Amino acid sequence: MITSTLLSDLEAVVGRDYVRTADDARETYGADALKRGHPADAVVLPDGAEEVAAVVRLCAAARLPIVPRGAGTGYTGGAVPVRGGIVISLERMNRILEIDEDNLVAVVEPNVITGDLQAAVERVGLFYPPDPASLKQSVIGGNVAECAGGPRAFKYGTTKQYVLGLQAVLPTGEIVETGGKVVKNVVGYDLTHLLVGSEGTLAIITRIILRLVPKPPVQSTLRATFRSVPAAVQAVANVIRERVVPAAVELIDGDSLEAVARYLNVRSLAPEGTGALLLLEVDGLAQAIGEEASRVERACRTAGATEVLRSNDEASRQELWRVRRELSHSLRTITPLKYNHDVVVPKGRIPQLFELVEQLKARFGLRIPCFGHAGDGNIHVNIMVMPGNDDEIRRAHEAERLLFEGVVALEGSISGEHGIGFAKAPFLPIELSPDEIALMKRVKRAFDPDGILNPGKIFPE
Amino acid sequence: MITSTLLSDLEAVVGRDYVRTADDARETYGADALKRGHPADAVVLPDGAEEVAAVVRLCAAARLPIVPRGAGTGYTGGAVPVRGGIVISLERMNRILEIDEDNLVAVVEPNVITGDLQAAVERVGLFYPPDPASLKQSVIGGNVAECAGGPRAFKYGTTKQYVLGLQAVLPTGEIVETGGKVVKNVVGYDLTHLLVGSEGTLAIITRIILRLVPKPPVQSTLRATFRSVPAAVQAVANVIRERVVPAAVELIDGDSLEAVARYLNVRSLAPEGTGALLLLEVDGLAQAIGEEASRVERACRTAGATEVLRSNDEASRQELWRVRRELSHSLRTITPLKYNHDVVVPKGRIPQLFELVEQLKARFGLRIPCFGHAGDGNIHVNIMVMPGNDDEIRRAHEAERLLFEGVVALEGSISGEHGIGFAKAPFLPIELSPDEIALMKRVKRAFDPDGILNPGKIFPE
Repeated sequence: MITSTLLSDLEAVVGRDYVRTADDARETYGADALKRGHPADAVVLPDGAEEVAAVVRLCAAARLPIVPRGAGTGYTGGAVPVRGGIVISLERMNRILEIDEDNLVAVVEPNVITGDLQAAVERVGLFYPPDPASLKQSVIGGNVAECAGGPRAFKYGTTKQYVLGLQAVLPTGEIVETGGKVVKNVVGYDLTHLLVGSEGTLAIITRIILRLVPKPPVQSTLRATFRSVPAAVQAVANVIRERVVPAAVELIDGDSLEAVARYLNVRSLAPEGTGALLLLEVDGLAQAIGEEASRVERACRTAGATEVLRSNDEASRQELWRVRRELSHSLRTITPLKYNHDVVVPKGRIPQLFELVEQLKARFGLRIPCFGHAGDGNIHVNIMVMPGNDDEIRRAHEAERLLFEGVVALEGSISGEHGIGFAKAPFLPIELSPDEIALMKRVKRAFDPDGILNPGKIFPE
Repeated sequence: MITSTLLSDLEAVVGRDYVRTADDARETYGADALKRGHPADAVVLPDGAEEVAAVVRLCAAARLPIVPRGAGTGYTGGAVPVRGGIVISLERMNRILEIDEDNLVAVVEPNVITGDLQAAVERVGLFYPPDPASLKQSVIGGNVAECAGGPRAFKYGTTKQYVLGLQAVLPTGEIVETGGKVVKNVVGYDLTHLLVGSEGTLAIITRIILRLVPKPPVQSTLRATFRSVPAAVQAVANVIRERVVPAAVELIDGDSLEAVARYLNVRSLAPEGTGALLLLEVDGLAQAIGEEASRVERACRTAGATEVLRSNDEASRQELWRVRRELSHSLRTITPLKYNHDVVVPKGRIPQLFELVEQLKARFGLRIPCFGHAGDGNIHVNIMVMPGNDDEIRRAHEAERLLFEGVVALEGSISGEHGIGFAKAPFLPIELSPDEIALMKRVKRAFDPDGILNPGKIFPE
């Protein structure tokens, strides 16, 4: 339990306005996009690494759990204080500290909204590629903690490829800096990339140095429809054989398309009999993308595309992307609740993944629309359930375990973007061996000997 | 000391032919490109992870140091058994196991020569970009252990960006697998990238899964000469402002150019008064690179280039690259020994780095030719010394400490490519704080509680 002495010590560090113990704050900061929260004992809003470190030292002395929080947009409960304790919200640390055009580097505090950073660097002709769907809400610190991906990952990589250095507060209270402003750095262990994707269990990130690239001047978008998912995947294979690397290769299955049509109240979004739709985008110099778009179109037609639309101007490009943007809302026309799993398989094995999903649909009588990043093999498998239908929920949980086992059997991974948090922790042993989990736990202890930082995450109980 | 029982146990694991205790083997396998070796007690050549693990368990039980070894081309003594013990040479594990064109993935054993892998994937239109200067001798496992870079890193990144997964043997004898064949994987901690660059101190890498990209169909090479290093660096800044990302941006200073001219026995390689030369390369689709090369040329001319040569065909491109390729040999025309430091600074600060080098030359009366990867700010600073000239060697060591301190003051790093090994271990505290070093040592213990794997490396005594 939190004592009044500790509370007044915390207030002395961050100011009275920035320690919150009211019930609504404890509830609000106890939940994230997973919608399975647990109230915090208190919420603290420090500003700057020194304040974070002072808060951490107070909590460490009291052996109280601490949970760092960005925007709370995570899907696996990474920011949920499942064992209570202090939520350290980084929301006041939201400044873009530097955009260094000469060195192609940005330095930011953790709670800069990803879309805001993108807009800021694009104004000077630069580009920060990672584009999680949540980019208008989620923040860079959370993106780093979870190693966020997005459609552009096939060409540009995920958040990991853009983090050059970090400042972070250890659960033992020290402030450390990892990496730096240089792309090449091989001095000691690469703690930067160990912290990326560590889900707030190793350190609290207080400053981030990001690599930027020049903004590609022109985009061209293509929308291709196919009778089946295997035909669409063949098109992706053809694109790769054409040696083109699109900036996006999004796959949407027939069930998902139907949901979007229902949501938009239109009869259909694609030719009759469409079982899969691909959205592809190439970007770069105008001189190159005409050729690249033509190769992509050829790749789709060779795979039997029933229709290929192509657009270079912004308005009609956005129209082509609309079906993808409306997807998440549209699934609610099926049921209000989805178990949204971000599994990933080697891209050539996407057809086998869809075969597995068909089997699960048939065996468990479930609706499972799928869409995702076909270039990476990262497919969002949405198991739709009606809240209160306990039998359906039970069947959904049976199906999700078989899904994870099947994905690992295909040499894939149970999470490509969302992380493990506490929601997926029970499934970790499906993918990792006992020796691998034991090693990760030893790494955790090297950072957090008392286990106070974000306990109950990643590892099964 | 190694016992005859242990030797026969090792022979039982790998076969008698693959345990070597002759003096010449112990010496040969005790040295690397640093040329400051220490003999091994014995050399073992296992084949496969199971044999490696069995060897490790035998050595662990005897508390005997073990040192993994690839091709022995490292510059900082990473493969040198400074405390004796068993060198585990991975030379028999040299197979390319798979080139998966559909998934853009290669699976290799550690001792595949980097250049051989590149040739193999290029035959099917794919590309493995990392290109350390040693690529005809060095092996992928060593490249991974050191996180090798090379000229293409500015556009394509270093080895780190291409490693998707590893199989490795822990110093406690377990075989673990990290990452996998998928680009997106956020399940547990990113041990893959912790092992990359860990210099064989955390685990012995026995299999590597690499990401490939399509081979760029066309290259265009430009050679531009400048009166001074700052003018050349201004050209690099201009290139970035033109929003072009060249595949290579190599900078060679006047002293280095003179050495090459002397070596090739020509009067001059560049217009009179040349203080710096840039080699730039753009690659991609033919439609784009004409435009990109023109932008690069404009960027150079705006910065005051005295001459710009440009070539698209293979033979004349190779002729432009010749000066770069002959550099290492050519420096021997100055003195037979060089302290070759791979420092790195934010690229906009390269002029300050060269100012520092000028000060060191003047103050210590040393010859210090420099060249390197200007796009990354990664400059090879070669302090030339005459073996046996103890006073010069003493001055060189004073200069190198000031060089490292200056580089860190410029927000750079003391090593961008070669790692720390034992040669640079005393300088680690210049760049890392005591808290950061202590954290890295705790990570080391999480992998290697008894400290038997490659002891004496990275950390100062």
